[in-house]
Amino acid sequence: MAGNSFGELFRFTTWGESHGPAIGCVVDGVPPRLPLAEPDIQHWLDRRRPGQSKFTTQRREPDQVRILSGVFEGLTTGAPVSLMIENVDQRSKDYGAIKDQFRPGHADFTYQAKYGIRDYRGGGRASARETACRVAAGAIARKILGDSVVIRGALIQIGTDRIDPDASDWNEVDKNPFWCPDGKAAARWEDLLMETRKRGSSLGAVIEVAASDVPAGLGEPVYDKLDADLAKAMMSINAVKGVEIGAGFRAAELSGEENADEMRIGNDGNPIFLSNQAGGILGGISSGQDVVVRFAVKPTSSILTPRRSVDRFGNDVEVVTKGRHDPCVGIRAVPVGEAMMAIVLADHLLRHRALAGTI
Amino acid sequence: MAGNSFGELFRFTTWGESHGPAIGCVVDGVPPRLPLAEPDIQHWLDRRRPGQSKFTTQRREPDQVRILSGVFEGLTTGAPVSLMIENVDQRSKDYGAIKDQFRPGHADFTYQAKYGIRDYRGGGRASARETACRVAAGAIARKILGDSVVIRGALIQIGTDRIDPDASDWNEVDKNPFWCPDGKAAARWEDLLMETRKRGSSLGAVIEVAASDVPAGLGEPVYDKLDADLAKAMMSINAVKGVEIGAGFRAAELSGEENADEMRIGNDGNPIFLSNQAGGILGGISSGQDVVVRFAVKPTSSILTPRRSVDRFGNDVEVVTKGRHDPCVGIRAVPVGEAMMAIVLADHLLRHRALAGTI
Amino acid sequence: MAGNSFGELFRFTTWGESHGPAIGCVVDGVPPRLPLAEPDIQHWLDRRRPGQSKFTTQRREPDQVRILSGVFEGLTTGAPVSLMIENVDQRSKDYGAIKDQFRPGHADFTYQAKYGIRDYRGGGRASARETACRVAAGAIARKILGDSVVIRGALIQIGTDRIDPDASDWNEVDKNPFWCPDGKAAARWEDLLMETRKRGSSLGAVIEVAASDVPAGLGEPVYDKLDADLAKAMMSINAVKGVEIGAGFRAAELSGEENADEMRIGNDGNPIFLSNQAGGILGGISSGQDVVVRFAVKPTSSILTPRRSVDRFGNDVEVVTKGRHDPCVGIRAVPVGEAMMAIVLADHLLRHRALAGTI
Amino acid sequence: MAGNSFGELFRFTTWGESHGPAIGCVVDGVPPRLPLAEPDIQHWLDRRRPGQSKFTTQRREPDQVRILSGVFEGLTTGAPVSLMIENVDQRSKDYGAIKDQFRPGHADFTYQAKYGIRDYRGGGRASARETACRVAAGAIARKILGDSVVIRGALIQIGTDRIDPDASDWNEVDKNPFWCPDGKAAARWEDLLMETRKRGSSLGAVIEVAASDVPAGLGEPVYDKLDADLAKAMMSINAVKGVEIGAGFRAAELSGEENADEMRIGNDGNPIFLSNQAGGILGGISSGQDVVVRFAVKPTSSILTPRRSVDRFGNDVEVVTKGRHDPCVGIRAVPVGEAMMAIVLADHLLRHRALAGTI
Repeated sequence: MAGNSFGELFRFTTWGESHGPAIGCVVDGVPPRLPLAEPDIQHWLDRRRPGQSKFTTQRREPDQVRILSGVFEGLTTGAPVSLMIENVDQRSKDYGAIKDQFRPGHADFTYQAKYGIRDYRGGGRASARETACRVAAGAIARKILGDSVVIRGALIQIGTDRIDPDASDWNEVDKNPFWCPDGKAAARWEDLLMETRKRGSSLGAVIEVAASDVPAGLGEPVYDKLDADLAKAMMSINAVKGVEIGAGFRAAELSGEENADEMRIGNDGNPIFLSNQAGGILGGISSGQDVVVRFAVKPTSSILTPRRSVDRFGNDVEVVTKGRHDPCVGIRAVPVGEAMMAIVLADHLLRHRALAGTI
Repeated sequence: MAGNSFGELFRFTTWGESHGPAIGCVVDGVPPRLPLAEPDIQHWLDRRRPGQSKFTTQRREPDQVRILSGVFEGLTTGAPVSLMIENVDQRSKDYGAIKDQFRPGHADFTYQAKYGIRDYRGGGRASARETACRVAAGAIARKILGDSVVIRGALIQIGTDRIDPDASDWNEVDKNPFWCPDGKAAARWEDLLMETRKRGSSLGAVIEVAASDVPAGLGEPVYDKLDADLAKAMMSINAVKGVEIGAGFRAAELSGEENADEMRIGNDGNPIFLSNQAGGILGGISSGQDVVVRFAVKPTSSILTPRRSVDRFGNDVEVVTKGRHDPCVGIRAVPVGEAMMAIVLADHLLRHRALAGTI
Repeated sequence: MAGNSFGELFRFTTWGESHGPAIGCVVDGVPPRLPLAEPDIQHWLDRRRPGQSKFTTQRREPDQVRILSGVFEGLTTGAPVSLMIENVDQRSKDYGAIKDQFRPGHADFTYQAKYGIRDYRGGGRASARETACRVAAGAIARKILGDSVVIRGALIQIGTDRIDPDASDWNEVDKNPFWCPDGKAAARWEDLLMETRKRGSSLGAVIEVAASDVPAGLGEPVYDKLDADLAKAMMSINAVKGVEIGAGFRAAELSGEENADEMRIGNDGNPIFLSNQAGGILGGISSGQDVVVRFAVKPTSSILTPRRSVDRFGNDVEVVTKGRHDPCVGIRAVPVGEAMMAIVLADHLLRHRALAGTI
Repeated sequence: MAGNSFGELFRFTTWGESHGPAIGCVVDGVPPRLPLAEPDIQHWLDRRRPGQSKFTTQRREPDQVRILSGVFEGLTTGAPVSLMIENVDQRSKDYGAIKDQFRPGHADFTYQAKYGIRDYRGGGRASARETACRVAAGAIARKILGDSVVIRGALIQIGTDRIDPDASDWNEVDKNPFWCPDGKAAARWEDLLMETRKRGSSLGAVIEVAASDVPAGLGEPVYDKLDADLAKAMMSINAVKGVEIGAGFRAAELSGEENADEMRIGNDGNPIFLSNQAGGILGGISSGQDVVVRFAVKPTSSILTPRRSVDRFGNDVEVVTKGRHDPCVGIRAVPVGEAMMAIVLADHLLRHRALAGTI
């Protein structure tokens, strides 16, 4: 209710601040007898880990996860799975200036307004460090979905530079530090980000996440539509400002004829769709097509150019963000978006199973 | 849990099908001693009511709301408020064809896949008729917010024709049948929709909803961010395919310098923002600026052109949607978007009050 | 959240006041394709209906239920089922005295303290009339459980007069106006209640509800134990002051040897229990034995003897409750307790199915 | 939803097994700016800690709590408070026998039936060790309630030996190892328990918890009545088989005249009650009187006498529970009951504040 939990049946609660002793999450609603060990989770955390390329924050966190409960002899027991990641590289620092100033574009001002107190060290609870817990919970969600459901994320735009959709290839994604599915775009971005970083500036990005082999029937009308929950899931990620499903905002520009995906009976006797403007969701329920979601990440506000702001005492100030930061925080949002997709699907799989009694 | 409820503290549950005897909702979490009578709700329902112009569905529903509980001597009592709207114009019709066919772009296929049964009359539970209940609940939410919070919605794009932002004027919105804030665009749309209707086709739209004088501090990090809940709220409206906050997807194209809203101490000694790329939300919490959300509505799939589809028995079929339908369902989504904004804000106002003990 | 809903997956919300136009409930989480018609629900409502014997309130309510949604061609669709019962016999009455006085033992004082307003007509929302909605929701819960699970309730004590456990016979329950399983006790109670009614006094009661053929495995440790949810369910019924499971309070008086139910392998190769002190629940999870719960109902405070109280304006007053009331409200609590048992079991059946994927 | 959380606005989730590396809880919904440090929590944990007298389990756990998040510079921040207690004394042991046997009166059989897997070491998740987390969460709940609300628990019955109510004195409670408010009873119990322990047997108990200076108005009708939530809270504690409020089961034996608490205007002009049969709750809402709850704890099933049972493979077996156990687990339930009272009251305080906007 205070907002640190996500999901209904597959439900996790995260805790921890950027510069506290640790961060972690408790995952409740994990079905029993799933094989689960720390490496299963570590695998996905390593994809998100900071400091892996020159294009992401230089904070060095091993992000080593520990399973503290809910697993016995290699299998989940149905009890809550508690995961903990210690914070190692909370570089000691003089927060003298920042502690009373509100950095533009950050949550400093609003946390102060809401709570009348704020842990200003590294952004406290508002830090993107929290997303490590999402990735960890996502690893368990994937176990529920099973291997048949494949979830893939990609960065498809940095600043105004968008990939060529015709050149998009999932196999390219792991070959560059951007999770970019278009090799040529990746090459351009390398220069773009080097230059952006030198200027101490930052760029936004657009991420696409697709899930294939999702069974038809997931999603609870009317308010917990699959797309509604995906929208909430993605919008809850730090710095996200927009979410769309399938054709998304472009759907507004199509005619009814262009937009509605036609169907035919396939060779195997089952219905097939001839296009996927819907992004795999009709009436809030998965159709069996690929579930496709995109989200926009704003450029980080941690930049070197001085910006006008105010402090807690009602004074005008100039703020410059020093320290280690990402020129494009969108890059590290890719594994987070994948995790949130897995989480939403796993939750709805359990919800569907409860009521429909199938799948 | 089965998805027919929305909100946490201000929480309503809707029920009813397009062609059943009635639709309605139960609103729980209404603070006591608010003045409330049927006309307070009817006022907003009338704005959404079908059959008001030649550009919306010709179904004739008076949409007369009844308050069945929770109000005593003109004041709310703290007990749940039950609202009911009888269905009057469920035109009798031969559903022979449609009952076994899956209309492309509709929820027919997915409801069948999920439930193994489907009320095919007028879309059943998936009908946009359900949104009348949202508008009714929204009327109560506005009572909680009080008169100081002003919520306004507008249609800012139909098909590819977007309003001129510089010509946008809230005062125009009530002067045309489109809720369009740009008089010239409204004139163009009149022609555009007449022509679209004649062709039996349909167009998508983009709606903007803004709330002013929202107190700073609303929104619960990390998962129940104000923008995350707005995203879910809007995406849960029928036919919506994308949601964005403030600069939205355009934020991806900005630099950190352009995107972060600077601050200064205003003449009254309080902080003011010099721009509003953030759409009034930072770190998931309202900043006191206008809360701005936009969403894209796809063109309705109820069109006259025959479309390829399949039936329940595994046969290829051609589907033509006859009957009364909107050439642009986005128009009637405007009051619905306003209602959902009011609902999300009211819920978060109560949530904030519980924990922070202020406002 | 405001407390008018019960259940997690099988979840219903009730609304309505004693003297409003109607009462009703919305049941969400009803699995699709269950046969359901109004007589299925009416059957159970008729058991609870007031005015059926001289020992219960003389208010004459037909309690005719209408299904307004969620059923199509005789089957549930997975959409919410909205049920409504019109209030017919809200006898017009002068509330002049009662409207400002707090009746001892009633919720008048606390509703006023909580809400600063109160619908004083017939107890408003606090009236036991609300329990008709529980019985209606319980009828749907029974459909989920199926015919194999048998739920039976009985009155086992009125005032200090308890049945003889050795003479208890479920077949007796329907043969007397008390749901009493002991024919001799029923005969005694007839005199006891006639005499109590003449004096304008009232008596408390104890009810036992048992469910047989409940599958093992229902209940979610640690906080949503099956017994914890049953305790909440029963304690939420009007006038209930105590709840116990199996041996209940008597368990405190037993030794470990006496209390722990031993097990043996039965003739069919399955484990059987040799006693049922546990009331069918171990560690919060059903064991496959009969689930047995008992609850105590206080004597109604609506009595003819003048009682000392105060009014809203700070004056001492004498209160006499006139009108039609039950000498033993516990009698009509029997079908309500049965309904709550069905509701808790159905909810946990769905919850178990979601996570364990079995049953 | 999987049952490891409690509360709505003040909501905590516990995790951990008896013999895992640690146990802990995450407390969400903690208002900001409350002073909180580890000793505030440790104080209450020390009251519950095992091994403090010869009458409780000899497991030696320091139960040292760590605050991992949500506190900054000595104050809560509004972020979730994560608490962890390491397990130290998980005595290594041969579980050869127990791992496949179902101990009578324990949750072994039902966990296996539910999950198809079970962490058999020390009871796993079903161990009363979990209650340490309740006590820790309760310490935070008390901070929300403030010092004016005083919560006191006492053991009022062991086996068939009940205290003399007229000799009951809260000041006695801390003077004996039983939390007994009657010095003479405490002396008797010393002998009783020594003898019980020697026989390797066990006894049940009844605990009373009372809260004074609770504001009137807490509790949400109809389903989340204050007494209903207290019933759930207490029944969810390990080994509890019955819960009652105020006069409780004895209320069934009273007449309406005896049971309804009369009122008068007190010397200060405010209403006062002349008795407290209601246990401080009317219509599910606190009246301002002491909130009084009692619950029965069964005798532990861990006894030395061999008991008949079965194993996983369908064989009859004899079970003897060796190791360190409590002759009366009810003793250590006293601080747990106090904690649950604090938790329920704090949750309802926040809930009331949200909707009524007062207190």
